Amino acid sequence: MVNIKKYIKILEKLNFKSMYNSDFFLTWEKTGDELDAVFIVADALRYLRENNISSKIFDSGLGISLFRDNSTRTRFSFASACNLLGLEVQDLDEGKSQIAHGETVRETANMISFMADVIGIRDDMYIGKGNKYMHDVVNAVTEGNKDGVLEQKPTLVNLQCDIDHPTQSMADALHLIHEFGGVENLKGKKIAMSWAYSPSYGKPLSVPQGIVGLMTRFGMEVVLAHPKGYEIMPEVQKVAEKNAIESGGTFKVTNDMKEAFKNADIVYPKSWAPFVAMEKRTVLYGNGDTQGIKELEKELLEENSKHKDWECTEEFMKNTKNGKALYLHCLPADISGVSCEKGEVEASVFNRYRIPLYKQASFKPYIIAAMIFLSKVKEPEKTLENLMIQNKIRWNF
Amino acid sequence: MVNIKKYIKILEKLNFKSMYNSDFFLTWEKTGDELDAVFIVADALRYLRENNISSKIFDSGLGISLFRDNSTRTRFSFASACNLLGLEVQDLDEGKSQIAHGETVRETANMISFMADVIGIRDDMYIGKGNKYMHDVVNAVTEGNKDGVLEQKPTLVNLQCDIDHPTQSMADALHLIHEFGGVENLKGKKIAMSWAYSPSYGKPLSVPQGIVGLMTRFGMEVVLAHPKGYEIMPEVQKVAEKNAIESGGTFKVTNDMKEAFKNADIVYPKSWAPFVAMEKRTVLYGNGDTQGIKELEKELLEENSKHKDWECTEEFMKNTKNGKALYLHCLPADISGVSCEKGEVEASVFNRYRIPLYKQASFKPYIIAAMIFLSKVKEPEKTLENLMIQNKIRWNF
Amino acid sequence: MVNIKKYIKILEKLNFKSMYNSDFFLTWEKTGDELDAVFIVADALRYLRENNISSKIFDSGLGISLFRDNSTRTRFSFASACNLLGLEVQDLDEGKSQIAHGETVRETANMISFMADVIGIRDDMYIGKGNKYMHDVVNAVTEGNKDGVLEQKPTLVNLQCDIDHPTQSMADALHLIHEFGGVENLKGKKIAMSWAYSPSYGKPLSVPQGIVGLMTRFGMEVVLAHPKGYEIMPEVQKVAEKNAIESGGTFKVTNDMKEAFKNADIVYPKSWAPFVAMEKRTVLYGNGDTQGIKELEKELLEENSKHKDWECTEEFMKNTKNGKALYLHCLPADISGVSCEKGEVEASVFNRYRIPLYKQASFKPYIIAAMIFLSKVKEPEKTLENLMIQNKIRWNF
Repeated sequence: MVNIKKYIKILEKLNFKSMYNSDFFLTWEKTGDELDAVFIVADALRYLRENNISSKIFDSGLGISLFRDNSTRTRFSFASACNLLGLEVQDLDEGKSQIAHGETVRETANMISFMADVIGIRDDMYIGKGNKYMHDVVNAVTEGNKDGVLEQKPTLVNLQCDIDHPTQSMADALHLIHEFGGVENLKGKKIAMSWAYSPSYGKPLSVPQGIVGLMTRFGMEVVLAHPKGYEIMPEVQKVAEKNAIESGGTFKVTNDMKEAFKNADIVYPKSWAPFVAMEKRTVLYGNGDTQGIKELEKELLEENSKHKDWECTEEFMKNTKNGKALYLHCLPADISGVSCEKGEVEASVFNRYRIPLYKQASFKPYIIAAMIFLSKVKEPEKTLENLMIQNKIRWNF
Repeated sequence: MVNIKKYIKILEKLNFKSMYNSDFFLTWEKTGDELDAVFIVADALRYLRENNISSKIFDSGLGISLFRDNSTRTRFSFASACNLLGLEVQDLDEGKSQIAHGETVRETANMISFMADVIGIRDDMYIGKGNKYMHDVVNAVTEGNKDGVLEQKPTLVNLQCDIDHPTQSMADALHLIHEFGGVENLKGKKIAMSWAYSPSYGKPLSVPQGIVGLMTRFGMEVVLAHPKGYEIMPEVQKVAEKNAIESGGTFKVTNDMKEAFKNADIVYPKSWAPFVAMEKRTVLYGNGDTQGIKELEKELLEENSKHKDWECTEEFMKNTKNGKALYLHCLPADISGVSCEKGEVEASVFNRYRIPLYKQASFKPYIIAAMIFLSKVKEPEKTLENLMIQNKIRWNF
Repeated sequence: MVNIKKYIKILEKLNFKSMYNSDFFLTWEKTGDELDAVFIVADALRYLRENNISSKIFDSGLGISLFRDNSTRTRFSFASACNLLGLEVQDLDEGKSQIAHGETVRETANMISFMADVIGIRDDMYIGKGNKYMHDVVNAVTEGNKDGVLEQKPTLVNLQCDIDHPTQSMADALHLIHEFGGVENLKGKKIAMSWAYSPSYGKPLSVPQGIVGLMTRFGMEVVLAHPKGYEIMPEVQKVAEKNAIESGGTFKVTNDMKEAFKNADIVYPKSWAPFVAMEKRTVLYGNGDTQGIKELEKELLEENSKHKDWECTEEFMKNTKNGKALYLHCLPADISGVSCEKGEVEASVFNRYRIPLYKQASFKPYIIAAMIFLSKVKEPEKTLENLMIQNKIRWNF
């Protein structure tokens, strides 16, 4: 129980009051204290679970999920987080619903929210659409709550949009915090967020954007590396630049993977599609231009294939700090000779880091639970203390 | 807590004993007291929820849902109702099941019910089929329970059949009760259930039928309006006529939307397919006559398009009581210029009534929960009192 | 409460300690005491439920299901079992997940298990694959647990593989135990597991294999009957032979249905595909040989049609012990003149046994719950006693 008290003490020093009854869209919309609070509450909830103490704060209630793109990890993480707190997941399957009737976002958002405490959305396919959609939903339920339609405003958790993937980047950061022994130890560490070759195309930008948008908060040396043409959203790049200045770190962009890896403490090699191409694709989809989409796809695959040397090899890894940089990936990775002929990472590198990679992923359910907890609980310190005192057994083994 | 006591006092005066261990198929199979009990329990459960008091009457148990037609509102309402009472929803997805093997209704009903407390079914597509199917299911589980196969008989809630849509009409009625300040105030009020133009075809008859079958219970002036040829089931029309006589209200059918709206307190303009056409369609589907179905569809769309003037316009609304009739819709509506070029309602009318429309929908989860509650709880007054006394927090905020 | 004490007393005499934190793959990997413990705990949990006493041993937690083949009965049984014990079901729908990316079993198994207490898998389509896949999953989560990735190792329940269908055969056996008044009364009883004609082809071998692999444990006279060419896996046949010797029963294989039924106490006539054909099919699927699959299907259907006389008729039933053998089926059955023109069983036979057939199926949720219980609870006797003493109401009726 010593740990919970430790966590509570840290929380007492942080200012995160405005998270109550709020939503989680982008990490850079949150203060440093607020991000810290998420990390601490995630650790506290994990501590409770690992000590077989129930952290249910809901006796009943629903967590609504809406996945507009495939998902395993995030789907199960959201389900786990809801279950941990006492909410039942109800999935909004747009295929089985009457949404095709041409229903407005406002209407759907209210119709699914009469007893919803949380809404988790993944909508990452189209530039300028996903984050906007989430805001439309939040605006609708906020209005619905004000108008007396909804007795509560459900909290939105962004499960990946076109701009950010906050539950991923926060889980990644918590993994780093644990690996390096504290958020303060991230200061000065070099992280290389690098593009890597993949035989598939069109992977979302939200992971690299989320990483540079978040890791620049901790005073790290953040390097974004990619071939020319694979630029991320300029707005997010500006966010990273600003963050770096404020946190006393640095943010650099390079077109040289080797340079990025040099002396890095952490590497995150991962494929993504160029922002400009994704914007084009969004327009093509909007126009239903199937021929145009096919041509763009072909073009992008051709362009990709020019950069097969952007692979996280043993050779590249040797170049990192003592040859032992921590390798990160949001998974699933395209592993050369395993899941594809040539991919993002050499099999021997991936295999060596498998356990830390799985641990990296293990933080996501707790990060989501912490986001929900901080939004639905007015005095998190007190509630955590109560859970500890109450000491209700989770599993009567 | 004063409110709960008030609700309990009202319940004590009503006779609804035969609802225990019973099912909910059609509103006109229930007595006036029984319908009142549903309204009161729905309000009581809403009061508990809004005051953050748990109304779980199940520690564990399943609510089975079977949707043979798309659904958002009703699906989420059923899930919410089950969750509110402590049941977990398990959806029977006929696509993923082995039902295609040619299993009988009796067998399936028993196989899914070993731990089912409630079964909710939507089966509204084919005339003469949906309600019959629900009865087949109830007969099967009743027999299964008698034979010692099932330790309990799950309660059936009709989530829309070919005849009635009781969770919709009851939610609509509860909305009216709240808007007009009591069920007694509905007496003498004029409601126009009117057909309205939609570019789609084949919308179920169960909403207009449910409305005229229920609203005639409260001594209202019920007018059913539609173009010639868009008749509803004659049996239901007879039910409405009989109800009106018994309740001291009236029931009229007209082919003139303007007349129906004249001086109306409430209007419910909504598209539906002619009963005769739906019967024909059922036969065509039964014969697998794809060509015939296509021809019928074409014919119906052509016929529909002759009645584009059946639109709930501002002009029509002016004609209602003080130009301020309450506008109802089960949603989603076909809104002219929004969800379609020309539809059931003018955008300005719809927009003006958006908040009350959403409130109308908000009653459905509570109506469903009340139907379940009254069927699964022997002494609802006592149970409500216990929930109040127990005062278990729903959300530890 | 007398019953629970009785069950506890029996458990106290059994040695099933190694079931704790273990998995359930095949019945013949379990000792007799372990199988008995499953039967007793299943009965105890059923007793609690039927006496309205909660048997929740989890306050929160997830039961993951993965169905690689259609399922109604087993899907609902697994959901019921999880719910009974306090776990929420989260289905892994491979179509909606990112598994197509070429993810390894090891990775997926860990990614879905961060808060999973149980994993239930059906994977019965391909010879040499299903059971192996389950072991791969268990190995992965065991390793994940050791490596500190997973705080707990979820328990695997085999919901049907290519070799065995233990939740089916155990439910069938518990049905027999109840029908014959005790497991000791099965000694010497004759059971005929017989192939039967079906117009469909390719039904899994796991039911007949599961039956001969389990029923030979109880000192029964087990006869496996099928036309020449419809052999089951030779390994399983060897298991049955060995079991029969050890239990003091017999195991015979015959190509004569009449002989098998002669004087039988129990008959289990059911279609399956020849093991050799299923092996061939697995290779064809592996090679993506659509043409080959079609030809094999045609060939198998032709072969099947030569054995239409393998039908469980009244005539055959007369031949059984006093003409009154207990008829078993895992359902759904192919009933002649009902679900198909000519099938596994005559309608009059099936109808006469409908109630016992449904009862047979009713044991599966409890068998699954017992398997989970024995794996997740260290001292089942004590936990059952606690549940009895605690006496928490399941349904506040």
